[in-house]
Amino acid sequence: MTENHQHTSLKERLRKIIFNDDSPAGRRFDIALTIAIALSLVILFVESSPSLPPWLKSTLGWMEVVFTIGFTIEYIARLYCAEDRRSYALSGWGIIDLVAILPPYLSVFIPGAQYMLILRSIRFIRIFRIFRLFVFLNEGELLLQAIGRSFHKIAVYFLFVLVLVICLGTLMFIIESGAPDSSFSDIGTSIYWAITTLSTVGYGDITPVTTAGRFLSSFIMLLGYTLIAVPGGIVTASFINATNEPVRNNRCPRCNNKVRKSDKFCSQCGEKL
Amino acid sequence: MTENHQHTSLKERLRKIIFNDDSPAGRRFDIALTIAIALSLVILFVESSPSLPPWLKSTLGWMEVVFTIGFTIEYIARLYCAEDRRSYALSGWGIIDLVAILPPYLSVFIPGAQYMLILRSIRFIRIFRIFRLFVFLNEGELLLQAIGRSFHKIAVYFLFVLVLVICLGTLMFIIESGAPDSSFSDIGTSIYWAITTLSTVGYGDITPVTTAGRFLSSFIMLLGYTLIAVPGGIVTASFINATNEPVRNNRCPRCNNKVRKSDKFCSQCGEKL
Amino acid sequence: MTENHQHTSLKERLRKIIFNDDSPAGRRFDIALTIAIALSLVILFVESSPSLPPWLKSTLGWMEVVFTIGFTIEYIARLYCAEDRRSYALSGWGIIDLVAILPPYLSVFIPGAQYMLILRSIRFIRIFRIFRLFVFLNEGELLLQAIGRSFHKIAVYFLFVLVLVICLGTLMFIIESGAPDSSFSDIGTSIYWAITTLSTVGYGDITPVTTAGRFLSSFIMLLGYTLIAVPGGIVTASFINATNEPVRNNRCPRCNNKVRKSDKFCSQCGEKL
Amino acid sequence: MTENHQHTSLKERLRKIIFNDDSPAGRRFDIALTIAIALSLVILFVESSPSLPPWLKSTLGWMEVVFTIGFTIEYIARLYCAEDRRSYALSGWGIIDLVAILPPYLSVFIPGAQYMLILRSIRFIRIFRIFRLFVFLNEGELLLQAIGRSFHKIAVYFLFVLVLVICLGTLMFIIESGAPDSSFSDIGTSIYWAITTLSTVGYGDITPVTTAGRFLSSFIMLLGYTLIAVPGGIVTASFINATNEPVRNNRCPRCNNKVRKSDKFCSQCGEKL
Repeated sequence: MTENHQHTSLKERLRKIIFNDDSPAGRRFDIALTIAIALSLVILFVESSPSLPPWLKSTLGWMEVVFTIGFTIEYIARLYCAEDRRSYALSGWGIIDLVAILPPYLSVFIPGAQYMLILRSIRFIRIFRIFRLFVFLNEGELLLQAIGRSFHKIAVYFLFVLVLVICLGTLMFIIESGAPDSSFSDIGTSIYWAITTLSTVGYGDITPVTTAGRFLSSFIMLLGYTLIAVPGGIVTASFINATNEPVRNNRCPRCNNKVRKSDKFCSQCGEKL
Repeated sequence: MTENHQHTSLKERLRKIIFNDDSPAGRRFDIALTIAIALSLVILFVESSPSLPPWLKSTLGWMEVVFTIGFTIEYIARLYCAEDRRSYALSGWGIIDLVAILPPYLSVFIPGAQYMLILRSIRFIRIFRIFRLFVFLNEGELLLQAIGRSFHKIAVYFLFVLVLVICLGTLMFIIESGAPDSSFSDIGTSIYWAITTLSTVGYGDITPVTTAGRFLSSFIMLLGYTLIAVPGGIVTASFINATNEPVRNNRCPRCNNKVRKSDKFCSQCGEKL
Repeated sequence: MTENHQHTSLKERLRKIIFNDDSPAGRRFDIALTIAIALSLVILFVESSPSLPPWLKSTLGWMEVVFTIGFTIEYIARLYCAEDRRSYALSGWGIIDLVAILPPYLSVFIPGAQYMLILRSIRFIRIFRIFRLFVFLNEGELLLQAIGRSFHKIAVYFLFVLVLVICLGTLMFIIESGAPDSSFSDIGTSIYWAITTLSTVGYGDITPVTTAGRFLSSFIMLLGYTLIAVPGGIVTASFINATNEPVRNNRCPRCNNKVRKSDKFCSQCGEKL
Repeated sequence: MTENHQHTSLKERLRKIIFNDDSPAGRRFDIALTIAIALSLVILFVESSPSLPPWLKSTLGWMEVVFTIGFTIEYIARLYCAEDRRSYALSGWGIIDLVAILPPYLSVFIPGAQYMLILRSIRFIRIFRIFRLFVFLNEGELLLQAIGRSFHKIAVYFLFVLVLVICLGTLMFIIESGAPDSSFSDIGTSIYWAITTLSTVGYGDITPVTTAGRFLSSFIMLLGYTLIAVPGGIVTASFINATNEPVRNNRCPRCNNKVRKSDKFCSQCGEKL
């Protein structure tokens, strides 16, 4: 044992503040940290603006240095007082904490790396811990589970949409590219347009001008109108099953066939369990 | 008792007209009031137009004064003849009624306060009372309950969307900001663009021009296409449960576990009851 | 009896062709009629174009006269050979048939009345009869029933959306109207913008330029993203109930309370049956 | 038997590589083929760009010739070693494989035919076979089944939407065409606008400028907001039924009436089984 008693007690007090958000000190620490993260993001946003007066630019630069030093100290403290340093450093939260301090150091070597600072925003999820909203985190997990269970269906659906937009985009290029003032300059642009239209985003930077092109566009829009319903149906069906079937572990969610807990796929319909 | 008999009877007749919408006089009063509210809103809308001839501007000004006096008298009358003045003044409807008359007075001190007049639109909900459409109000309450029950899930979802648009917006800024004629001038604008795209609104005031930017945009659109399904799934599942589970009070809505009426959360899965 | 035997037989043969779409002649008549309706609509579409050569304009004018005479003869024939003239003339189909021939006559007196021709498009529904697709008409009726059952909820929802866009539009006008180059010229325009944004249409003809305006827009977009889920939830819940509950007549669709067939509302929850 | 033993063994080895994707050689062949298809599509996309330097244009032209020869050899090899040549040539995959090699040959006679190359993208579905993701293909089939079962309802719905946009487009043309700077030049354009708005795409190339036009637009947007929910409801109800009703073959999916396996339609409600 290389650390003396005093060190251990400091470590334990630190651990109480940093990791134990039930104590009043830990709570205050968490609130201060969230505010610091928010501020450092605001600095990054303001700094990205091209027309800043020089004095503001240098002030923001100095503030960023301060925050970087602060977050670095915090990371070292976390590493120092963690019960199991290795498992903290390799845990999801540990990696996020590390990634959140690296960008300013990396930006010395790689220009633009400072924008990786944005990954600090992931630490906002901590907000639920501050307000004791563990129910929310629980809900988030259930959400992810429901989406995860419909992942297969959504993947197939997306490949279908991809093939569709490639075909529709090319068709549109053939129809529109000949027209004067056409904005369908090449197939890549046309596929981009097809995705914009099918997803009902519709920027309007590229729009059909010929009658045939508008006919096809109308068809694509009505198709998108229907297709937009499909992921909704998949996810909703998954949510409803998640809500109604508490004994999910013993029955296949799709075909209701009895399954064993050790099964990975339903023996009747191949559904992933 | 400070009020004599004659006053009491006047008070009671007034109360019958103002608060009791079952009597013919009360009904006529409610209809007149709704028309007056609609007219005062139309005046506000027309007044906001910058290119009005002076005579119309002054006429509208005078009409607004008349309406303000009218609504003030109505509020005083309501306060005067309410069975319990204090509880009326502090009730939801009482506060809305007060807020609806204050703006013109406040605009003397605070410029722009006159636009708070718009809060009068909330009083439109009274329209259901005029037409005896209490079933509608009942439906509205059930709607709110269903949405309220899924509030936790939607809150988690929105925090996730927020972190996502911050990251995607910054990524887009890195990709697009170097291009000539780029409209991605700073990170804030890029995040605004990411929200516009993910929500499938797609104004088209900011659009990607580089190939890499269009690739990322296409990905964001298809992502938004899927994400748009999630709140739908949450709300729909909630509606279906609201419709199908009349014994909700004795069973957990999520895991069907038996719960006591005094329970606030399900003892098995932590669902808020 | 004023009509002789020969007339009656002509009448009956006509009736077989016009009303009985099971006979080969009736089938051919229905197909010809649908093509004629489509052609007359195409003529109307082409005629509306401002830059037509004079010879095409006059040709289309003549064709329209021919179609008008043809549809008028068809209506007279229908009226002549209907089993019960009065009930045909006053039935839904009878009124549509009449309305479809009136516009060209009305356009002599009322300019622009010729565009009412568009109501002929309603006669397209006849297409299902041609192809014996009665199942489709049956589906359509079930769709309307499901939507009809959720009408109350949707009406409440729309009043809520209306009050919301009035408030948000005014707020946006206060924020944006002062900015140079602002397209938020008056409250009416701002409310129009709020509807465009909340419904995720997003034309982009009116867009915020101030930072505060973009913040509020982002909030409105994310709100619209969630609100768009509500009608979906209402309609889906209605569809699922329509599909799952064949004994709907004996149970309240909302609270499952036993109801009598003669009941108009559920005695427990007030749901319209 | 016209083929000698040596030929048969070559044929069998080829068949193992081309058709049997379980063998290591077959797997490598499938991966190489997918990469070749992707590359040939990328060449097509780049070639469509109008501003290419001549050397790149000719290089891409040569590469396309190489790929065309390669895919032709592959098709001949498939045909040669197929167990049943006729049934392969006429199967879905066989036709896709043929269509994928024809365009370059056709483009000699028909200009523009080279863009049919895009149909090669359909062969991407093969990607699931490479990664042994048969579960995905299974999901895709279930998706198609669920959509197929709601085809009737969606067809009726689309005819309704078509009649609606024709009527709304014409109404909008009447309102807007008189205004200066109106982009509603003819009825066809107005119907195109109505589809753009109702589907919430909202390009913004055509926008209303009059007050009446904006009123009608707002109404159409809110209508589209509700209508967009209908296909969602149809598809979701279908998914949920697909998930919850394993004994679908013995019960009508709509009215739960007992049906025989040989029945094509439910005897009680006419639902197609």
